[in-house]
Amino acid sequence: MTGFKRVEAEDLAFFEEVMPGRVLSGAAISTDHMHDEMTEYGSYAPEAVLQAESAAEICAVLRYCNERRIAVTPRGAGTGLCGGCVAVQGGIVLCSERMKRVLEVDVRNMTATLEPGVLLMEFPKALEGTGLFYPPDPGEKTATMGGNVMTNAGGMRAVRYGVTRDYVLGMDVALADGTLLTLGGKNVKTSSGYSLLNLMIGSEGTLGIVTKLTVKLIPEPRANVSLLLPFDDLDACIGAVPEILACGCEPTAVEFMEREVIACAERYLGKQFPDASADAYLLVRLDGPSVEALRPGMEALTDLALRLGARDVLLADTSERKESIWNARGAFLEAIKGSCSTMDECDVVVPRDRIAAFVRRSAEIGRAENVRVCSFGHAGDGNLHIYVCRDGMEDAAWKRAVTAVMDALYAAARDMGGAVSGEHGIGHAKRGYLLQSLGERQLELMRGIKKVFDPNGILNPGKVV
Amino acid sequence: MTGFKRVEAEDLAFFEEVMPGRVLSGAAISTDHMHDEMTEYGSYAPEAVLQAESAAEICAVLRYCNERRIAVTPRGAGTGLCGGCVAVQGGIVLCSERMKRVLEVDVRNMTATLEPGVLLMEFPKALEGTGLFYPPDPGEKTATMGGNVMTNAGGMRAVRYGVTRDYVLGMDVALADGTLLTLGGKNVKTSSGYSLLNLMIGSEGTLGIVTKLTVKLIPEPRANVSLLLPFDDLDACIGAVPEILACGCEPTAVEFMEREVIACAERYLGKQFPDASADAYLLVRLDGPSVEALRPGMEALTDLALRLGARDVLLADTSERKESIWNARGAFLEAIKGSCSTMDECDVVVPRDRIAAFVRRSAEIGRAENVRVCSFGHAGDGNLHIYVCRDGMEDAAWKRAVTAVMDALYAAARDMGGAVSGEHGIGHAKRGYLLQSLGERQLELMRGIKKVFDPNGILNPGKVV
Repeated sequence: MTGFKRVEAEDLAFFEEVMPGRVLSGAAISTDHMHDEMTEYGSYAPEAVLQAESAAEICAVLRYCNERRIAVTPRGAGTGLCGGCVAVQGGIVLCSERMKRVLEVDVRNMTATLEPGVLLMEFPKALEGTGLFYPPDPGEKTATMGGNVMTNAGGMRAVRYGVTRDYVLGMDVALADGTLLTLGGKNVKTSSGYSLLNLMIGSEGTLGIVTKLTVKLIPEPRANVSLLLPFDDLDACIGAVPEILACGCEPTAVEFMEREVIACAERYLGKQFPDASADAYLLVRLDGPSVEALRPGMEALTDLALRLGARDVLLADTSERKESIWNARGAFLEAIKGSCSTMDECDVVVPRDRIAAFVRRSAEIGRAENVRVCSFGHAGDGNLHIYVCRDGMEDAAWKRAVTAVMDALYAAARDMGGAVSGEHGIGHAKRGYLLQSLGERQLELMRGIKKVFDPNGILNPGKVV
Repeated sequence: MTGFKRVEAEDLAFFEEVMPGRVLSGAAISTDHMHDEMTEYGSYAPEAVLQAESAAEICAVLRYCNERRIAVTPRGAGTGLCGGCVAVQGGIVLCSERMKRVLEVDVRNMTATLEPGVLLMEFPKALEGTGLFYPPDPGEKTATMGGNVMTNAGGMRAVRYGVTRDYVLGMDVALADGTLLTLGGKNVKTSSGYSLLNLMIGSEGTLGIVTKLTVKLIPEPRANVSLLLPFDDLDACIGAVPEILACGCEPTAVEFMEREVIACAERYLGKQFPDASADAYLLVRLDGPSVEALRPGMEALTDLALRLGARDVLLADTSERKESIWNARGAFLEAIKGSCSTMDECDVVVPRDRIAAFVRRSAEIGRAENVRVCSFGHAGDGNLHIYVCRDGMEDAAWKRAVTAVMDALYAAARDMGGAVSGEHGIGHAKRGYLLQSLGERQLELMRGIKKVFDPNGILNPGKVV
């Protein structure tokens, strides 16, 4: 059905010639390369794993595979959540982990140029002392920058600063036939033909493999504070979000969390969260040039929160206090994973005024199917992460329940004008839901675009479209 | 060569049935519909002009024209600068000027939904009293919002707030075959398949005709000040830009202007500019929640400017003062047009640290060809508007000189890593330069995309790709 050529000895010999000592096959391939963070979505063994070190190597391998119809699955750090970097149709996995140099930090143009394998947690080190920073802040810090661009990752600071898309100025990308294309550059705006750059962003490696990135930096805000707002009930908590966004305090982050998820994180980290008084919390971060400059925003926010039913306003202005809150927030995914044998995840985004309704609906759906549903997320941008936990369920019951819950969640999101994925992407796991949500005609256009870029369909087959 | 069917009596009858009383043909077509703001690029008579009032009408006409291979040129207010809305290959011009309703202002989601014919200068009226505003601020206020989206217009406030692309959340778009597609919506982020929305933005009506827009709004900053910085020479003036961007004052706008252009505007408006002491100026605008909150930024900027050689720092904090400066800035294009019989325009964007070099180079190029070259522009984002003025030149000499100057300007931009257009688009006038700048392979991909969306090539033929 797939029509791909299998990797044989002569192919391995060619790969070995291009990347000496960096080609694995057969039993040498670790199971780590057979799945991403979501083991729930199955394990797929590639026929070879290649560790690229340059664009030239990537182009050479692509040219070879394109001529022979060998499937190529690009992979960063494998931290995805929908199977985007998994070789579901065999062939090779092409890793960019070793391409991890920050090539240039251009202070005058406020840009950085880097290889795609740079980790999100490593990148800030290259910016130290420049006074500049890269705003996108996805929770998974061991993800690669290339992976972030290919899924258009969002993260904690998107409310104020936007998502990865907003910071990609240029990229080099290897096409399926091995051509290397330079899209964009250091220009901060352009109206020069169709934006192939924006088409590549979020394409999950199905249109090309990114080999170099130029990203926009901005001056680092010199001060920040976080305010934790405990609410007695979910409705008041989530209902406060639109008013917080409109009150003029320009929040960087507005995160939503329920007691149950916080308790998971406390157990996981072995550390107490600074407050245990309430069922639902908003965590708001403000950035600015000085604490002085943040004062009016803090005051406006405090007054507003109390007026809207917050029990209290806990100010985190010391680094210890901030860390204890944000570390808990950062650990939610791992903590929930640790709390159950298996789980499935839904990353929908809905218009911001529908978040409360969606969270309520997801709880109802969980109750109806008798499974535990945890949620947290980026309330400020309508993007929720909803986890369905298996706990002690039997195999068949779990399969049935998780499918029913997911179908109901995506249907609810569709009804509310939402989209399938806010920031994690589609991969192979969410394809059915994407089709339902976009309709046949949009998929047809996307498939047409795919064919223009990759006529033989070798790039990340079985993903997205 | 074009292979399009000409509009005949039976076609006119069909159009008249769809849009009764809103179809013009033959001598009834005004010359206004034969060009945009740049009469320099020639006059092209369409065979019919249709004034659409709804998406359904647009879809019906497209379906009809697609089946019969009649060329369709979409048009907003006709304020473009590269012939994008001109029927260079005949057929019909499909106007959206009458589709000018703001359909909804959704305060809780901070979005507005509107028809494409809403004028940039009319839109703010619909937002009065909501505390929200739409940041993009292109100079041409009589442009339509649809036109702005289709050229990815930039404008004065792009340094802080970004360009039109950054504010389009969703659109309804009529495809060449008459299908109406809804892309995006009110969600503020998404990673759900290829971004057809971003592909449409800046596509200049060659992939589809926008029939409805949903744009993002943000809380209106309650205070703003403008600072005018006079410099003795161009180098010091432009050289200050990167340091101003990095000083932490978060400028909304950083505009650059030379004395010669200001003098044009003074003559055109019959009003004096507040300062006449210097050869080159930077105009910086700061936005914030209060004048108090802006104070640290103003002080940092003032200190920095004086240290970098500004003769003075003129503060415009009253509305009269702001108006006198910004009105002059807004009149530059018309003033330059008024100062010569004909002119041509170049809208390149270069990395921000190359602006000084590019402005110097453009002056040299003008001197070498013996023509007057005026420039001004968005120094804060590297986007310059360079005008080549005919003055008293003979026809043949002007043709030769303007071609030589334009070729040299675009070559210089290419050498500096720049792009053909920062915000005005490509239309039919800049196609040759786009090809030179992107290379054959990128154009080939763009043409492939065009074919996916518009297999018969009826949409805005002869433009962009």
